[in-house]
Amino acid sequence: MRMSARQNVPAVGVGLLGLGVVGSAVAKAVLSQDESKQREIPLALVCAVVRDLHKKRSIDLDQSILSDDPQAVIGNTSVGIVVELMGGEYPAFDYIASSLEAGKHVVTANKEVMCKRGDELLRIAVDNNVELQYEASVGGGIPIIGPLTNDLAANRIQSIRAIINGTTNFMLTKMAHEAADFDAVLAEAQSLGYAEADPTADVDGFDPMYKLSVLTRLAYHTEMPIDGIHREGIRDIHVKDFRYASELGYTIKLLAAAQTHGESGLLARVHPALIPLEVPMAAVNGVLNAVEVEGDLVGSLWFQGPGAGAEPTASAVVGDILKITESSGNNSYRSAAFASFKISSMDDHVCQYYMRLTASDQPGVLANVARVLGDAGISISAVLQKDTDIEKTQADLVIMTHPAREANMQTAVSLIRKLETVIRMDNLIRVENYTGRLQKRTLL
Amino acid sequence: MRMSARQNVPAVGVGLLGLGVVGSAVAKAVLSQDESKQREIPLALVCAVVRDLHKKRSIDLDQSILSDDPQAVIGNTSVGIVVELMGGEYPAFDYIASSLEAGKHVVTANKEVMCKRGDELLRIAVDNNVELQYEASVGGGIPIIGPLTNDLAANRIQSIRAIINGTTNFMLTKMAHEAADFDAVLAEAQSLGYAEADPTADVDGFDPMYKLSVLTRLAYHTEMPIDGIHREGIRDIHVKDFRYASELGYTIKLLAAAQTHGESGLLARVHPALIPLEVPMAAVNGVLNAVEVEGDLVGSLWFQGPGAGAEPTASAVVGDILKITESSGNNSYRSAAFASFKISSMDDHVCQYYMRLTASDQPGVLANVARVLGDAGISISAVLQKDTDIEKTQADLVIMTHPAREANMQTAVSLIRKLETVIRMDNLIRVENYTGRLQKRTLL
Repeated sequence: MRMSARQNVPAVGVGLLGLGVVGSAVAKAVLSQDESKQREIPLALVCAVVRDLHKKRSIDLDQSILSDDPQAVIGNTSVGIVVELMGGEYPAFDYIASSLEAGKHVVTANKEVMCKRGDELLRIAVDNNVELQYEASVGGGIPIIGPLTNDLAANRIQSIRAIINGTTNFMLTKMAHEAADFDAVLAEAQSLGYAEADPTADVDGFDPMYKLSVLTRLAYHTEMPIDGIHREGIRDIHVKDFRYASELGYTIKLLAAAQTHGESGLLARVHPALIPLEVPMAAVNGVLNAVEVEGDLVGSLWFQGPGAGAEPTASAVVGDILKITESSGNNSYRSAAFASFKISSMDDHVCQYYMRLTASDQPGVLANVARVLGDAGISISAVLQKDTDIEKTQADLVIMTHPAREANMQTAVSLIRKLETVIRMDNLIRVENYTGRLQKRTLL
Repeated sequence: MRMSARQNVPAVGVGLLGLGVVGSAVAKAVLSQDESKQREIPLALVCAVVRDLHKKRSIDLDQSILSDDPQAVIGNTSVGIVVELMGGEYPAFDYIASSLEAGKHVVTANKEVMCKRGDELLRIAVDNNVELQYEASVGGGIPIIGPLTNDLAANRIQSIRAIINGTTNFMLTKMAHEAADFDAVLAEAQSLGYAEADPTADVDGFDPMYKLSVLTRLAYHTEMPIDGIHREGIRDIHVKDFRYASELGYTIKLLAAAQTHGESGLLARVHPALIPLEVPMAAVNGVLNAVEVEGDLVGSLWFQGPGAGAEPTASAVVGDILKITESSGNNSYRSAAFASFKISSMDDHVCQYYMRLTASDQPGVLANVARVLGDAGISISAVLQKDTDIEKTQADLVIMTHPAREANMQTAVSLIRKLETVIRMDNLIRVENYTGRLQKRTLL
């Protein structure tokens, strides 16, 4: 069902430069926005420029919107927003610049061009009164460009420390946890598609250097030339180093950091670093990324999430597209139609329960409680008997259940309260469920 | 030095409703913005409404801008942005509504009014073509309203799970780590100013319920009436429960969660929950806040930072003010003048170093290396001798230094390489420094 308000709003045309795994995910998300989100301003996927028109693709697109000529997007009057997903400095720079000069907004995921030519491109955008958005260029799906640009603008940033290269973090995590050596983990990263055939950009720290430069521009309002950034990669890290570091209380990560240094100096550096095992950075494993920002007002903030992958990158790219389509209004409140959710009752919540009872210390207590739970279809996962008081002949009985429906649990609880052998129901605390997709996505 | 570009730009007038600890921090930050950030659009602190004109304040303000009449802000034509920091539903609702109707933008840190009347207020803002920003209402300095509104807009949000009440998290952390009982930690929280004399809003879960409702509106584009949110506080949690939970592999937190449930249902709940010790939520201690967002595209994101306090809240409030002053332009790139930082050389970086050598397994090796380090002013913090190879009469020598300047270290390294007893310098890895202010701010 569409909002009546948007019946007459023309769609904003989106043109893609690149239709690889990220491009396909972006195309899917653009197409699904229209249906699912009921936004006031609809999006239309107008054209996608690809290298090979005949390549088989995972996404089922109308063939007529594919082209192998970049002008089909850049020179297309139906395209309002150009999405550049090719990567590298050239020809991306020329395509982005031409698009901006043609009065089109641009969204890019390209850290290299935003590092090397970002200042120039952002000025071209300003001069042409269009937007250039690049949330996806650093940290994949983690919102970090937006917060640094907007939410944290009141702060003087004191430091940024980040793990912003998923490939090397995957490799270092494998080396740390499985004592696998560098060549083996590189081969594995390549076979999984995390590392390129030529792994230089990741392994030698170019990729995190580009990203750090982009963050530094935003955080410190200054241009950081690449040769001003100290850069070391991870080729020299040996499995031995993880073993010794661990004995000393550390693990090893490829860190990208920028911090004000002394009075007015700014130091930016990318290098392997020993990280104390007790700080959160040490627990950022696999392809996860994390960014720690310290500001004079806000103190220390921590952002963590998937730093790469087609869908997380599409989240950032399509987020940028929506920012552009909605910045014409002055308030984002109306931008998405209100959805109608049924509000669920707590009765339907399913979780494990922790139950603490004060019970008579006599045989049969647990049997009675277990019978009531069993009658309600609830099984027991663990039992502790604690703090037995011989004088009062009572004890704490702690029961951990398997997952149960809240309504069933409440029925059981009211019956347990009435048991003669139960002196008091002291506490019933729900156990939060961390299994399933959410946890799987955050693991290696 | 001011940018020439802004010489003729009139300042945006800011009026404060409330000048307590947060209000004073906001006033300071507004005043310092003008000097430090060289923004194109200057801010002017026009008026602050207080209850008691004669109260002694930590901030040194021109007395003439203080007033005890709200109309001095709401009805003041020099005020373009009203900052509401009074809290509570009334009279805050009336003041915000009147300000919006008078054509003024409003920034508020008030979760209660944004929960109970947010829909109405946001519509009044839209109708009057002004902005209503409320980043500070949830999670203190953590950017979460902005990311949910903008950066994550492409996602269908699947769940939000958060620790968004610093007071109760402080209390539960104390109970967990120090086995202090509820009444004692409540008294301590009150004496530290974390809890009110009447602690109901925190301890009984009203504050996190308001915040959860605000997040739910944004994430699910739906209104969640307060009585649709399951709410339980922490009064029944006993020190015993932490002990038993810990034996079972859990800690206890006051969780605020909203998740889609089944086909179309949305369940929102605030209650104490057992959290597995191995997930990040279990390590959110003291007054820290954390928000975990799961979206269909982005997967699982984690935001963590100071959830309360005057300066973190001021970071969010002044961030909102800057969003408003800069949203008139279409591109935030020009909003802050470029700062001129001296780019520091890596030579000046100071850190501990981990050094791994392959050395002859003979007496005097360590003495030689230590002498070179000592001559460069570098002292040793730990030494490991490992993997002795009797046949080759060589061994790994791992040296951890105390903090040293990079240039000194590099000089020492080049001399160590030349030592006869040193077969090979295998690795030199910097140790990242996590002491100092940054860590202190994140601890209890």
